Amino acid sequence: MPPPLPSSRSDCAQVQVTRLRAGALEPGAEPDYVALETPVALEFNGVSHATMLATPADLEDFAVGFSLSEGIIGGIGDVRGIDLLPQPDGIVVQVEISTACEVRLRSRRRAMAGRTGCGLCGVETLPEVLRPVAPVANPAPVSFQAVLAAMRDIRARQALHDITGATHAAGWAGAEGTVALVREDVGRHNALDKLVGALARQGVRAGDGILAVSSRASFEMVQKTAAAGVRVLAAVSAPTSLAIRLANDANVTLLGFLRGDDATLYSHPERIIT
Amino acid sequence: MPPPLPSSRSDCAQVQVTRLRAGALEPGAEPDYVALETPVALEFNGVSHATMLATPADLEDFAVGFSLSEGIIGGIGDVRGIDLLPQPDGIVVQVEISTACEVRLRSRRRAMAGRTGCGLCGVETLPEVLRPVAPVANPAPVSFQAVLAAMRDIRARQALHDITGATHAAGWAGAEGTVALVREDVGRHNALDKLVGALARQGVRAGDGILAVSSRASFEMVQKTAAAGVRVLAAVSAPTSLAIRLANDANVTLLGFLRGDDATLYSHPERIIT
Repeated sequence: MPPPLPSSRSDCAQVQVTRLRAGALEPGAEPDYVALETPVALEFNGVSHATMLATPADLEDFAVGFSLSEGIIGGIGDVRGIDLLPQPDGIVVQVEISTACEVRLRSRRRAMAGRTGCGLCGVETLPEVLRPVAPVANPAPVSFQAVLAAMRDIRARQALHDITGATHAAGWAGAEGTVALVREDVGRHNALDKLVGALARQGVRAGDGILAVSSRASFEMVQKTAAAGVRVLAAVSAPTSLAIRLANDANVTLLGFLRGDDATLYSHPERIIT
Repeated sequence: MPPPLPSSRSDCAQVQVTRLRAGALEPGAEPDYVALETPVALEFNGVSHATMLATPADLEDFAVGFSLSEGIIGGIGDVRGIDLLPQPDGIVVQVEISTACEVRLRSRRRAMAGRTGCGLCGVETLPEVLRPVAPVANPAPVSFQAVLAAMRDIRARQALHDITGATHAAGWAGAEGTVALVREDVGRHNALDKLVGALARQGVRAGDGILAVSSRASFEMVQKTAAAGVRVLAAVSAPTSLAIRLANDANVTLLGFLRGDDATLYSHPERIIT
């Protein structure tokens, strides 16, 4: 029997399950907790942009982080307001952005329409997926002990994962390894977007610290890291080939298989000091 | 030092890495293997549809499985041909589908355009994400021992994961638990689409067997399972709330946390016999 669910949680729900133990069905059903997953539709100034499946917590952070990661806004100052509209089939997140950002988004859509016969962001052509990210400028070294401390701290703060076993976490720590913020989601991209958005909304200078994630490091995780101007991404599991290529190009130090006191360095090892 | 890479593999690549062990940097770089990830752009009858990041192996399987999962084709007979076009930035997969399927896809795009101001599939409205899937008709029971055997077998056949630690696997077994096919990818959705496509291309009656995945079970994993007409989905890790809801509605038996001889049953437990 799991512990009682804190009634304030908006990110998980109780379900009835049947257990199989040592190959045999246990009689009767018992309560268990699962992570909530719901369609989240992002609109910018009234125009539908994309719909993603996400855990319905910290959606304002998600909206800001997604907008930053995708280059739709240049900073938190470009966001005029965020409204969450629950619907029967999911949640619509209405983001009001500055006129300059809206004009840029419209022209991006038009440029893509010319190439593909379509418009909005979901339909990306090959060059659009690999769009260039400005290299991270900050050359400052980072202590491996700080990276290890940050990852240990993040692993200890995966509240939703502890309840459900279903979610990924992304955390941000200062360069000395003290974790300031953690966000969780059923999707690893969403967790990182939520974290990046939370940092921006709280006025944290993300570029001074490091990012650590409980997941693998695929291309988009490095893309979001570089877009946030962060120089180190540490992952519990493996990176992909494209993630490593981008990390090299974008001046991001990428660590994988961060387990115990071990890790593997895939790009820019010169930043890590032990 | 990892084992030499079989030169025939199109799904991984060698990179130079630096190791950190017990908190200390090891001197020099050494070779390691990582999973390939590349943008894959799907075109149907010359029109761009969507671009995904995927491991560039079994892309014909991927194209067919994606088309089936998304309801773009009704069966392998609707596919006239598949061409892979390597580009500097990724791979274009050109799928020729029947006229009837093309007309249906066009009208879907028009219907969506009316609602969202856009067209192609990537931009899904809330109802489109949760589009209904026909419930699986097959009521036949499945032995838990067969599910356990299938999962053990799939775990033993994750060749790319064994080399890179970076990929998910999806496998299909007959109802007695003998695994016939396994597919791997950096994305769990892609692995399942590749598997579903491989089953269709090889003329296997998918509905007679069961699916097992090395990952979590999110909504789209159940959606693909139901679209393939398979009555059992077993996952190593946790399901989400939406996955369970769909599994209940679509008459799919969903098992999670399949580890050792234990598991948790989240929907339609009546099918499982021990």
